[in-house]
Amino acid sequence: LLSLSSLVCCSAAADVDEPNLSKSFLPQHESDHGGAVGSSQDTRLHVFTVDYDYVQIPYEVTLWILLASLAKIGFHIYHRLPRLMPESCILIAIGALVGAIIFASDHKSPPVMNTSIYFLYLLPPIVLEEGYFMPTRPFFENFGSILWWSVLGSLLNSFGIGLSLYGLCQIEAFGLTDLNLLQNLLFGSMISAVDPVAALVVFEEASVNEQLHMMIFGESLLNDGITVVLYNIFIAFTQMHRYEEIESIDVFAGFARFFVVGLGGILFGIVFGFVSALMTRFTHNVSAIEPLLVFMFSYLSYLSAETLYISGILAMTACAVTMKKYVEENVSQNSYTTIKYFMKMLSSVSETLIFVFMGVSTVGKNHEWNWAFICFTLLFCFIWRTLSVFALFYIGNKFRTYPFTFKDQLIISYSGLRGASSFSLAFLLPANLFPRKKLFITATLVVIYFTVFIQGITIGPLVRYLDVKKTNKKESINEEIHVRLMDHLKAGIEDICGHWSHYQLRDKFKKFDNKYLKKILIREHQPKSSIVSLYKKMEIKLAIEMAESGMKISEASTASLQSGRKRRVHRLSPAEVESMRDVLAHNLYQVRQ
Amino acid sequence: LLSLSSLVCCSAAADVDEPNLSKSFLPQHESDHGGAVGSSQDTRLHVFTVDYDYVQIPYEVTLWILLASLAKIGFHIYHRLPRLMPESCILIAIGALVGAIIFASDHKSPPVMNTSIYFLYLLPPIVLEEGYFMPTRPFFENFGSILWWSVLGSLLNSFGIGLSLYGLCQIEAFGLTDLNLLQNLLFGSMISAVDPVAALVVFEEASVNEQLHMMIFGESLLNDGITVVLYNIFIAFTQMHRYEEIESIDVFAGFARFFVVGLGGILFGIVFGFVSALMTRFTHNVSAIEPLLVFMFSYLSYLSAETLYISGILAMTACAVTMKKYVEENVSQNSYTTIKYFMKMLSSVSETLIFVFMGVSTVGKNHEWNWAFICFTLLFCFIWRTLSVFALFYIGNKFRTYPFTFKDQLIISYSGLRGASSFSLAFLLPANLFPRKKLFITATLVVIYFTVFIQGITIGPLVRYLDVKKTNKKESINEEIHVRLMDHLKAGIEDICGHWSHYQLRDKFKKFDNKYLKKILIREHQPKSSIVSLYKKMEIKLAIEMAESGMKISEASTASLQSGRKRRVHRLSPAEVESMRDVLAHNLYQVRQ
Repeated sequence: LLSLSSLVCCSAAADVDEPNLSKSFLPQHESDHGGAVGSSQDTRLHVFTVDYDYVQIPYEVTLWILLASLAKIGFHIYHRLPRLMPESCILIAIGALVGAIIFASDHKSPPVMNTSIYFLYLLPPIVLEEGYFMPTRPFFENFGSILWWSVLGSLLNSFGIGLSLYGLCQIEAFGLTDLNLLQNLLFGSMISAVDPVAALVVFEEASVNEQLHMMIFGESLLNDGITVVLYNIFIAFTQMHRYEEIESIDVFAGFARFFVVGLGGILFGIVFGFVSALMTRFTHNVSAIEPLLVFMFSYLSYLSAETLYISGILAMTACAVTMKKYVEENVSQNSYTTIKYFMKMLSSVSETLIFVFMGVSTVGKNHEWNWAFICFTLLFCFIWRTLSVFALFYIGNKFRTYPFTFKDQLIISYSGLRGASSFSLAFLLPANLFPRKKLFITATLVVIYFTVFIQGITIGPLVRYLDVKKTNKKESINEEIHVRLMDHLKAGIEDICGHWSHYQLRDKFKKFDNKYLKKILIREHQPKSSIVSLYKKMEIKLAIEMAESGMKISEASTASLQSGRKRRVHRLSPAEVESMRDVLAHNLYQVRQ
Repeated sequence: LLSLSSLVCCSAAADVDEPNLSKSFLPQHESDHGGAVGSSQDTRLHVFTVDYDYVQIPYEVTLWILLASLAKIGFHIYHRLPRLMPESCILIAIGALVGAIIFASDHKSPPVMNTSIYFLYLLPPIVLEEGYFMPTRPFFENFGSILWWSVLGSLLNSFGIGLSLYGLCQIEAFGLTDLNLLQNLLFGSMISAVDPVAALVVFEEASVNEQLHMMIFGESLLNDGITVVLYNIFIAFTQMHRYEEIESIDVFAGFARFFVVGLGGILFGIVFGFVSALMTRFTHNVSAIEPLLVFMFSYLSYLSAETLYISGILAMTACAVTMKKYVEENVSQNSYTTIKYFMKMLSSVSETLIFVFMGVSTVGKNHEWNWAFICFTLLFCFIWRTLSVFALFYIGNKFRTYPFTFKDQLIISYSGLRGASSFSLAFLLPANLFPRKKLFITATLVVIYFTVFIQGITIGPLVRYLDVKKTNKKESINEEIHVRLMDHLKAGIEDICGHWSHYQLRDKFKKFDNKYLKKILIREHQPKSSIVSLYKKMEIKLAIEMAESGMKISEASTASLQSGRKRRVHRLSPAEVESMRDVLAHNLYQVRQ
């Protein structure tokens, strides 16, 4: 009941500023207001005055964010709802409801999520959070598979869907003969963009094993770059097609773009990451602005990359991965917590807003329905994804020590959720080049709704039914020591064999890191061994957990002495751990050197 | 050296986007770009493309923030600099330097800080932080004095300076006879706005006693409302003056506005504060968005108040004070840290940006110099402030148990620093009504520079020379218990005497709070006694400090066992404290009931 009333109240709040909504999400001419103390034009002095235009933009942004937050709170109040379906479904539904209210009261199409709002403001926080909290170790261990699957997978999907649909368009009965090859290929590239948001939200809720999670994560990371480049190239080709012939040099330029976009993005990110790490070396007196440096530099890397049309997503991820290690050593504990939780907060809000906006933008007059095109799009999406997964993993598995099981492949092929990126690309199509833009929009929306609702709701039960290996995440100090020991061992064995693999690479990087990078980027008087800093982090985590659990114990029990004793027992462990740590760190680390 | 190089590098960075700077800070027509995958109009496909317009606004905002951060870092690297002068001076100087570079390379006036940027985006974070971290107890204990001094003080200053300058304008030799009474009164109200930012920054660095700090804080809080209302009224009167006569009803309306602005703002803030506290009751499953609710609701209170032309500053402060108590009980420890540190970060950045912008805006062609007007403005500001302080405190001291000493009054009269609010009000003047706007701008800037540089730099030494009582802030559990005990005692004695004062009021409010408000606003299963929750907070603070100090010890000493022992001794204390706390809380709290 409460969740309902909060929703009603917030949709009412959204109702209030309806007439102006359309302004704030479309490019507009800012009127030159007098400001807080504006110059009212009537000559009599009033006790009350209202000037809404003046605060309109921040006011509506705040209201939208609050609507999103309230929707999120409402969703979680009734605790059985999150088990039934992913949050994204509810958020889209709420958005559609708000859109319908706007449409009904205004008789205009509700405001469409502006593409630049999506790419400039809503996507970056999500990418930053994904990159910052990415488990680097499993990612780089599976790097080959990720690259193989995401690059070839998206190419296969784009061209597969595009060509199949072009074949369909040749059948005159469907009334689609005006769609040419390029338009179909463009639509294929657009619709094959697996969404980083939609897929990962679902997967986090289903908590599958790390290897599987990494594949989906890596796919959505690289995927974006590829589909956006393809989309750009096809749009450029469509324009050329009107005026002149496409030459072979253009096709080569298109190929070159791929590498520029990908590698350029990563390079950008690494440079910005190092600069920001270097900056945090000097903030010990102004620790208040430490989180700001992290946020601003990573955002700057994203924006700079976007300016040059290289992949902002890759740049931001690379920046986050690069800076994380050094920044965390430099900043204060409070800044660390602030960075972590504020990042999570921002990304969670962005996510929520994206889904709500997607719902809002659904309602309107920009649709064209064509049974054949829409149904076959759905079908082809499904077929090509399944085909590409099984084909590529069949080959990829031959090079892996731990191959992906059939179940894993099934889950990956089923997790091709489409989301906001396809959606905003569809709205972005230039209407003069694509006379059937409305058809593309409708088809994209149907695919998104189908994948988010049907696949999103059923993927959790499917994972449970197939009994896919789940994560068993438990960071213990012991495990960490053994993993590190094995690393050194493997690198040593490879050293002896003369074999050259990623263990060697990692070892070489670590030596370089210790010798040069850390000295430049990390403040002085910090422990130099990475094991020590790892334990430091875990120790702090423990201390905070202790304080919190101690709190809970003291709340729950009335006998204070008893709880005091309990906590005293707890409290011994980090001291023991610490002595153990020092003994181990000293003995273990110097062996290899 | 490093600070210099970082400054040079950032001014170079600012240099790069100079030609576009002026666009982003003035209202502009957003061009309709194709977005991330924009539609380039040339027909040949390129490997590299650049589209700066697309990212311009967020890019430049990010660069400005980074410039501000780097300036801050640079200032603190050389540790003797902060002792010599307040940060604000350096920041203004850097801003002026950047402005000069822009002016020299562009031969145009550099962009002026837009008033709506100041009031909508830069001021709110500072107000929120001030309100949220305001020590409520000393504020309400000194509430009468604060109200007396700030309301009457700013009225006296406004009219005093305005009328004195009007007198000056009657002397024909100065060439100021075209300035009429209303224009002078308006200028008086504008120039008498003591800045919340400038004054408090200096005072925090000088760390004076709490009573004094409260007076300055309260003044800057209420002052704003008063001067902005006066400014508005005088502008309206000036407009009327052109067309018709000012009637007595207008003067009454002006009076009424004062109350509407002040009380309306506080009411707004309290309502929003309660709503946000209520919302955080339901966030236990979505703790990621807890900080967001705090920020968004307080911002909404500010914006809503500004829309209705009532004091946003008062609204936001009231909102922060109201929500703080309940929100802190509801949210998780991590959200609490995030709220706290992010708030500090935001306000610190806003502050820095304001000073830098002020410096930037100084350079340009919008100045008119008149020796008489400017010198006498400085003089009158000084005379009227000193007069009003000594007159008002002479009367106010008669009603106080602890009167303000002569030294205190001297410091208060010397701390009348003007800042960004006067400055943006000056730029806001409608040029058609004020033909000598440029003179007003110049005079305002001179007063700001004089007060920030001369008074700002000398106030620290003055405080030390006069040997003003400094803060002796040390929260101990023992002290807190005694203060609370005394509260109950005083309320009891007053109960018996039949006397009615603020102890009684506080006691009544606390009972009401415990009986109704807490039950509505705070989650269930929370300890109900405020003493317990206070100790809980202190305990957590202690635990975190312990963990951090433990970290430092372990870094410093190589003998791990020794440090382990040290920490074990430390670690006993909270358990003891806890048992003590429970015993005391139970015995102490039930006595009065």
